[in-house]
Amino acid sequence: MTVKAYGAHSGDQPLESMDITRRAPGPHDVQIDIAFCGVCHSDLHQVRGEWAGTMYPCVPGHEIVGRVAAVGAHVSSHRVGDLVGVGCMVDSCKGCAECEDGLENYCDGMVGTYNGVTDDAPGHTLGGYSEQIVVHERFVLRVSHPEAQLASVAPLLCAGITTWSPLRHWGAGPGKRVGIVGIGGLGHMGIKLARAMGAHVVAFTTSESKRRAAEALGAHEVVVSTDPEAMAARAKSLDLIVNTVAAPHNLDAFTSLLKRDGTMVLVGAPASPHPSPEVFNLIGKRRSIAGSMIGGIPETQEMLDFCAEHGIVADIEMIRADDINAAYERMLEGDVKYRFVIDNATLAA
Amino acid sequence: MTVKAYGAHSGDQPLESMDITRRAPGPHDVQIDIAFCGVCHSDLHQVRGEWAGTMYPCVPGHEIVGRVAAVGAHVSSHRVGDLVGVGCMVDSCKGCAECEDGLENYCDGMVGTYNGVTDDAPGHTLGGYSEQIVVHERFVLRVSHPEAQLASVAPLLCAGITTWSPLRHWGAGPGKRVGIVGIGGLGHMGIKLARAMGAHVVAFTTSESKRRAAEALGAHEVVVSTDPEAMAARAKSLDLIVNTVAAPHNLDAFTSLLKRDGTMVLVGAPASPHPSPEVFNLIGKRRSIAGSMIGGIPETQEMLDFCAEHGIVADIEMIRADDINAAYERMLEGDVKYRFVIDNATLAA
Ligand SMILES: [Zn+2]
Ligand SMILES: [Zn+2]
Ligand SMILES: [Zn+2]
Ligand SMILES: [Zn+2]
Repeated sequence: MTVKAYGAHSGDQPLESMDITRRAPGPHDVQIDIAFCGVCHSDLHQVRGEWAGTMYPCVPGHEIVGRVAAVGAHVSSHRVGDLVGVGCMVDSCKGCAECEDGLENYCDGMVGTYNGVTDDAPGHTLGGYSEQIVVHERFVLRVSHPEAQLASVAPLLCAGITTWSPLRHWGAGPGKRVGIVGIGGLGHMGIKLARAMGAHVVAFTTSESKRRAAEALGAHEVVVSTDPEAMAARAKSLDLIVNTVAAPHNLDAFTSLLKRDGTMVLVGAPASPHPSPEVFNLIGKRRSIAGSMIGGIPETQEMLDFCAEHGIVADIEMIRADDINAAYERMLEGDVKYRFVIDNATLAA
Repeated sequence: MTVKAYGAHSGDQPLESMDITRRAPGPHDVQIDIAFCGVCHSDLHQVRGEWAGTMYPCVPGHEIVGRVAAVGAHVSSHRVGDLVGVGCMVDSCKGCAECEDGLENYCDGMVGTYNGVTDDAPGHTLGGYSEQIVVHERFVLRVSHPEAQLASVAPLLCAGITTWSPLRHWGAGPGKRVGIVGIGGLGHMGIKLARAMGAHVVAFTTSESKRRAAEALGAHEVVVSTDPEAMAARAKSLDLIVNTVAAPHNLDAFTSLLKRDGTMVLVGAPASPHPSPEVFNLIGKRRSIAGSMIGGIPETQEMLDFCAEHGIVADIEMIRADDINAAYERMLEGDVKYRFVIDNATLAA
């Protein structure tokens, strides 16, 4: 089956319209008509070859929502016509401890939604900047939001679960004080989710201009991290920090805000290293610096259900497929509130 | 009360015999005849002014064991003649959340056994390289080892609790695979304690020559950390690593040995920073790098009781007080198995 997609033939070429093929659905496959696809920073890094090992042609996109077009004979959990989502993974080994624990994201055999190894042509997976995708049922999520919100649901599949998973794992909730560092695609979801979970939310930004917006997203407090007095006033006050900033920065400024036994979770890996964190900052209060990557399938479903129940979606700006190169440039300038989402109907144009 | 001690008048002078005063015991104080005092790397750093803020004269020593000589009127938990120990702390605020949780080591008002602020002359605390010490009862530990082992118990008060606390907090025990990095004063206790707790113990050293010794201490496996094949063979195999090496080194070599959700705990702060740890190593398996500092009083008592029950002591080399300057030099060369302990009876000589 040939479908329209948007991707690049090399790292130094812009994305352009292309035809790709999708496999016929196997017994456990779900074939999805993609309605919308969110635009993640990872898409840009991968397609431009800024991360090692990009295989071309590269079709990015791992914040996928749409409607089931067909299902394989053994698929019981999804039906034609259902609203569904696909996130950062389309397969895993399904047999290791991680898979058994529902943490397929940490499986060594995890297959990314794009640039993963597959038997399908052209030998690597192609993502959601396309009209259709075919995915093993295990990696297809149910969406119970109203259809009118579908475009705004798309970013939950990466930005949402990437912040939800550490918030849940490290116990964000009533009585906990949670910091969210960075108010971008990930951070804006972190603020909304932590607030809805019942935590006291402190948002950190380098930009005074983002104060109002962060409050509107649900932050109880907004701290400009370049203000030494504001930072000092929050010393030893937070149980958990989810740090969404991938650019290299001084981690000590944030670890010092943790209470004894507090954890700062990094959800982005910098291209060049952060300044080495001050070890005494950890030792002196038994603090931790941890990392977290996306989330497993059961917790992604849990997050989607929670968001539907609480009316949570991402704040998005819809674009046409042929806007994508310009959107990448705006994303690099931080000029998006807070996620671009492609209207995949424009791929056929 | 004037007692003999060994200390330094400045950072660039050797330690020498000196007279110091101890306060008369107050109602909650315990006066201790010090029998032995272990020699910790911290002693050297502090007395030589390698850490900021050393106050002189400086009398180091925070691995103190001896016998109760007198008790204040309100002391109920210790009696004259008891064998007791004093570790890295002699006081704290006794009112904060940390103190209430028995984690006085993380109290902002914790008073170190030496170089801490006190009302006693000369205005800062003087440690265990002395004939006697007077300590609030809360910070005096019961020693139930046989008296013949007393000298070898001394290092439990710092090296023992510093490794015990993270092993307990992060759940070392049966079914867990625990790495101990570095086989020195701290590491040799870490191996003994983790083994006695029932964990599978993997010792890491840069020196093939330490293999036999590490096995004798109780390590199930010994890995030379400069051997890439031996390290690769242990990838993703450990639940917990207690890293006792304070010298700057590549942390990634060890974080990559952790299973998903594993933690590496640093118990030493380097004088210059470690190379910045690779964030993807944390993110890819939800690993943590944490810090831990000594331990609280209740857990120190628990550790001492556990060691008495299991017949665990440190491996020591006894020295005279006037050997201390030479011992420091040997300690810097790593030429000690595994802890020097001063025979405090030699202070009077
Ligand atoms: Zn993403
Ligand atoms: Zn797996
Ligand atoms: Zn010590
Ligand atoms: Zn306190």
